[in-house]
Amino acid sequence: MKAVVYAGPGRVSVDDVAEPRLEEPDDALVRVTLSAICGTDLHLVSGHVDIEPGTGLGHEFVGEVVAVGSAVRGIRPGDTVLGSDFTACGGCWWCRRGDHWECPERQFFGTGTSFGKALAGAQAEIVRVPHASTVLCPLPPGCPADGAIFVGDALATGFAAAERGRVAPGDTVVVMGGGAVGQMASLACQAVGAAAVVVVDLVEGRRALAAREGALSATPEEVDGLVRRLTAGRGADVAIDAVGGARVLEAALTLARPRGTVVSVGAHFDSSFALPVNRAFAEELTLTFAIGDAMRLRDRLLPLVAAGVIDPTVVVTERVALADVPAAYERFARHEAVKILIDM
Amino acid sequence: MKAVVYAGPGRVSVDDVAEPRLEEPDDALVRVTLSAICGTDLHLVSGHVDIEPGTGLGHEFVGEVVAVGSAVRGIRPGDTVLGSDFTACGGCWWCRRGDHWECPERQFFGTGTSFGKALAGAQAEIVRVPHASTVLCPLPPGCPADGAIFVGDALATGFAAAERGRVAPGDTVVVMGGGAVGQMASLACQAVGAAAVVVVDLVEGRRALAAREGALSATPEEVDGLVRRLTAGRGADVAIDAVGGARVLEAALTLARPRGTVVSVGAHFDSSFALPVNRAFAEELTLTFAIGDAMRLRDRLLPLVAAGVIDPTVVVTERVALADVPAAYERFARHEAVKILIDM
Amino acid sequence: MKAVVYAGPGRVSVDDVAEPRLEEPDDALVRVTLSAICGTDLHLVSGHVDIEPGTGLGHEFVGEVVAVGSAVRGIRPGDTVLGSDFTACGGCWWCRRGDHWECPERQFFGTGTSFGKALAGAQAEIVRVPHASTVLCPLPPGCPADGAIFVGDALATGFAAAERGRVAPGDTVVVMGGGAVGQMASLACQAVGAAAVVVVDLVEGRRALAAREGALSATPEEVDGLVRRLTAGRGADVAIDAVGGARVLEAALTLARPRGTVVSVGAHFDSSFALPVNRAFAEELTLTFAIGDAMRLRDRLLPLVAAGVIDPTVVVTERVALADVPAAYERFARHEAVKILIDM
Amino acid sequence: MKAVVYAGPGRVSVDDVAEPRLEEPDDALVRVTLSAICGTDLHLVSGHVDIEPGTGLGHEFVGEVVAVGSAVRGIRPGDTVLGSDFTACGGCWWCRRGDHWECPERQFFGTGTSFGKALAGAQAEIVRVPHASTVLCPLPPGCPADGAIFVGDALATGFAAAERGRVAPGDTVVVMGGGAVGQMASLACQAVGAAAVVVVDLVEGRRALAAREGALSATPEEVDGLVRRLTAGRGADVAIDAVGGARVLEAALTLARPRGTVVSVGAHFDSSFALPVNRAFAEELTLTFAIGDAMRLRDRLLPLVAAGVIDPTVVVTERVALADVPAAYERFARHEAVKILIDM
Repeated sequence: MKAVVYAGPGRVSVDDVAEPRLEEPDDALVRVTLSAICGTDLHLVSGHVDIEPGTGLGHEFVGEVVAVGSAVRGIRPGDTVLGSDFTACGGCWWCRRGDHWECPERQFFGTGTSFGKALAGAQAEIVRVPHASTVLCPLPPGCPADGAIFVGDALATGFAAAERGRVAPGDTVVVMGGGAVGQMASLACQAVGAAAVVVVDLVEGRRALAAREGALSATPEEVDGLVRRLTAGRGADVAIDAVGGARVLEAALTLARPRGTVVSVGAHFDSSFALPVNRAFAEELTLTFAIGDAMRLRDRLLPLVAAGVIDPTVVVTERVALADVPAAYERFARHEAVKILIDM
Repeated sequence: MKAVVYAGPGRVSVDDVAEPRLEEPDDALVRVTLSAICGTDLHLVSGHVDIEPGTGLGHEFVGEVVAVGSAVRGIRPGDTVLGSDFTACGGCWWCRRGDHWECPERQFFGTGTSFGKALAGAQAEIVRVPHASTVLCPLPPGCPADGAIFVGDALATGFAAAERGRVAPGDTVVVMGGGAVGQMASLACQAVGAAAVVVVDLVEGRRALAAREGALSATPEEVDGLVRRLTAGRGADVAIDAVGGARVLEAALTLARPRGTVVSVGAHFDSSFALPVNRAFAEELTLTFAIGDAMRLRDRLLPLVAAGVIDPTVVVTERVALADVPAAYERFARHEAVKILIDM
Repeated sequence: MKAVVYAGPGRVSVDDVAEPRLEEPDDALVRVTLSAICGTDLHLVSGHVDIEPGTGLGHEFVGEVVAVGSAVRGIRPGDTVLGSDFTACGGCWWCRRGDHWECPERQFFGTGTSFGKALAGAQAEIVRVPHASTVLCPLPPGCPADGAIFVGDALATGFAAAERGRVAPGDTVVVMGGGAVGQMASLACQAVGAAAVVVVDLVEGRRALAAREGALSATPEEVDGLVRRLTAGRGADVAIDAVGGARVLEAALTLARPRGTVVSVGAHFDSSFALPVNRAFAEELTLTFAIGDAMRLRDRLLPLVAAGVIDPTVVVTERVALADVPAAYERFARHEAVKILIDM
Repeated sequence: MKAVVYAGPGRVSVDDVAEPRLEEPDDALVRVTLSAICGTDLHLVSGHVDIEPGTGLGHEFVGEVVAVGSAVRGIRPGDTVLGSDFTACGGCWWCRRGDHWECPERQFFGTGTSFGKALAGAQAEIVRVPHASTVLCPLPPGCPADGAIFVGDALATGFAAAERGRVAPGDTVVVMGGGAVGQMASLACQAVGAAAVVVVDLVEGRRALAAREGALSATPEEVDGLVRRLTAGRGADVAIDAVGGARVLEAALTLARPRGTVVSVGAHFDSSFALPVNRAFAEELTLTFAIGDAMRLRDRLLPLVAAGVIDPTVVVTERVALADVPAAYERFARHEAVKILIDM
């Protein structure tokens, strides 16, 4: 079968690879109908991460179940399903709490060994899904596949920011970064009752997108003034870092009001961040980090997508065929796209 | 000054009454600029309640502060303020919890002695406001008066239904009754993340209004089928009774799923309701009653109204001058209006 | 093997029955080492319920796993495990929310067809456990079996009362009924921060037990005065009905303060209960029903039992051998015991 | 009157100072009957803080109201009251949320200008209390003064750690520091349902005190092993820094499990703390800072103290008369006392 694989620094190719088969009784095989390219894929392909050429990529997918192992429950061949970006056993102490990311059996699709034991990617014609009863979920009737696929990663991440920040009705929220995750965070915060969401980005098109979709928008220079005006000078109730890295996290901390919360859903690889601890103490700040968890959040998110309350497709800038994926990665790397879907 | 007063069963008049004055150090006087007619007013005027002719009516108001007592803080003459429908001391055990309705010093504007010690109404040119530091609240910049006035009663009540029912993102909610409170409950539930809100009413115009404002709508005959379809047969996560009385409460109970919540924000005057206790037990239902509390909720609601996230004015079917209020009460009694505002 | 079975109205016997075997891939077989007699068993045996003579009884158990099906995860032969009183699939919409009682595959051990499809009882040498990965749980190191067994039913029920009533630090709680569930509710409410718990019972020994274990106690005549004294006249923050039936529920409602919560964990079989709806509305009461759920609560409760924070064994009035069970049922029916454990 | 004042680096004296008088309509005067010495006092006296000699000290007090201004409600001369350690207006946006520390009118008793506008101390025969309706609270019947005084600061702080860390039933909590605040945090976490609390201190007497009062105890060397054993290797659900400074905060972070919470209630004066942000991200940690707030928490805490559920007096190592206060400060500075009360 065809699959997108890492082909060396900065490059992917569409290769013929061996078709996966059921390995464990709780495996399923899914014929992927829709996949997507994520910022995480770019990071892997960049050459800064230690992955093997030939590693299968992709962790966002919707598809049709083609086979299930003997222990799979709740999922049948023929079902149209949403996949989670990573797997979990569904039964351990962590899974019972809904903290699937900490499951010892977690495997992250299509990321090589970057996050533990490798698992082939979902930018492929067929994907093998371990712990399928937990990892897969039938699409609700009427739920569009191109909206649902976001529940498998970017919307789960954006919503995790709203959840973890305990965004409450009437709150003023600032979202640092207008990429796919930032836009999803904006939609999620609006959906749960924020009075105002300010999306901050250097790129005008991303600010315009946020504004079209119900947020206010600001450049990094404008944001402080805007947030102060919106909050009688207090600062944001919740500040979300949807980018990662020290500089954006620092800015988010500056924008949060006393007793406010800063949530980072951006990735951090530095061993140390200079937290302004005297202010954090004096103003009783909360700083928290969150990773999206489709398995925990999809029962809340799929109905919102199915009902059209949240429409994640507003960030889709192009849909490509499998053969066009290498070129699409290149455009994505040049920031010419917010989100790219792949029709398999 | 002019004020709307009860003139005997079924009738109100606009009379000349003595202008109020500051009586206590924490009183304020407010020149009312906008008032409203509420279902509670109709109930008082109906003749089924024991109130004295001459009782001043009205409990919803926005206005300008004209005088404050020596102990009033946070409010100054000249401020444009929103009033709460009832008063509370702000300092007792109940008020400290945000449960102002239980404050021993509660007085309900414009309802005679129906709810305790009488306090003149707000359908008047000037209203005296006890415990003004607690009861009044300056309008935030840019917040429209005709939206804000709903925070003083109907929207606080509708939102209380969402709050008390713990409506969560992705929930399916049914609202029994498409009057002003039901419509506010619909807007509130949508604002906090319901995936679907179904508003049930016999009157087509009210169903159409709900549908225009983002809800689904149903007749009493249709609702069960619709809710089952929306929820894979389970029933509503939250069922809101926005009407009151046994029949509607009974219907709400029928529509709630196992482990679901029924919230009644409609009034109940019967000494006994036949609760289907075997089903309530077997399905672990929650039944709860809520009364709106503007003092607790306005810090959340005013930003939502100011930002346009919730626009309560969609239920306003007419705005009248003070002189036209008696005729407006009559039209309201004939169900020819959903909500009537009074420009004072 | 030997098992306790229903032998006709008012009688049980210890019979030789066929040993169970693995039927499904997610079944386990458990050699029961400790079982217990519950009020539910008495109810079944009373003759007022339609169950077949020969029905195996018992739903509380700790034991050793002797065999597991091919799909069982997390549990191995040789493990000492706690069983839940009922089963659930672990993967459906309800199970994913932690609402196992609503799982379509729920089976209640040892209750015949009273709650759906029959499943043999746990007052038996071997018990077959469907969906064993979900239903069973290894005992944490150092956790005593005679404490843990309560997590499988009575303590889960008592804790559910505290959880569902949202008992908060400093609260005054009243518990109607000093049987095993009432005493567990008392311990649970104390564990989560109640300032005062009042246990109400007609039987002096049960009041004394509650008082020894940290609660206040009262007769039905004394309770109102005591609760008013403790709460400056307001009433209980949370009132728990741990008995069931109209009279106790009515009393619980009377004792709750305005905006308070009444939780019933007692069984209700009447089709109708006369709820004082005018007061419930005017005082914004919450009435809620809860059924214990060991699968949801055991990760919280087992550590509390293992650490000795909650010691459920204080209610054990006797431990008997399997052969003595018929006589023990009789003493239990005569209210000569609070809780009887069975060493198998 | 007599009052304890700062007398230069390392020294306090008991001086004759002018008796305070009512200055504002919402002031009260309180004759202090019991005061206390706090770590904050030591810090002020140390010479590392810029305060004026002659500054009145002390912020913990119980006393009798001797006079109230015209606007004071709920408090009458003759009442025995508990004071908060700082003041707040009770009506602003922050106060309405219960975030009194952020009130623009906050004044911290007895700390000079270290935290804003100076307010004379409570280690004095009479203390003037601004915003007395909000700042003071009558002692509940039967509540001992020497327990209640802790609600005014140290217990409110310890409980804030439990509240902010969302300590849940069954949790394992580690408390860094066995001083007064650490011991209060231990008591508070136990009161709300922690299964195990580990108090860490270098001083054997403090570990022994914690152990006597229901906690486990450990030296800094032992704690990691103990926490891992208690939690199957996961780490603490909540780690509380009750000391302050980088080293202890760092240790607390090390002890928290993935998705766990670190709460710091110790003071931080450094402009920067080296947060291990890669681990914080990968393990989705929450880091939060909390300052005790007696005004928000006393309605929960006083009932717990009055009922004896929490007995804060276990940390009292001596009670001294006013004249002996200078010597007591010296013993406290030499760590010869955990908590010193002053009988005025």
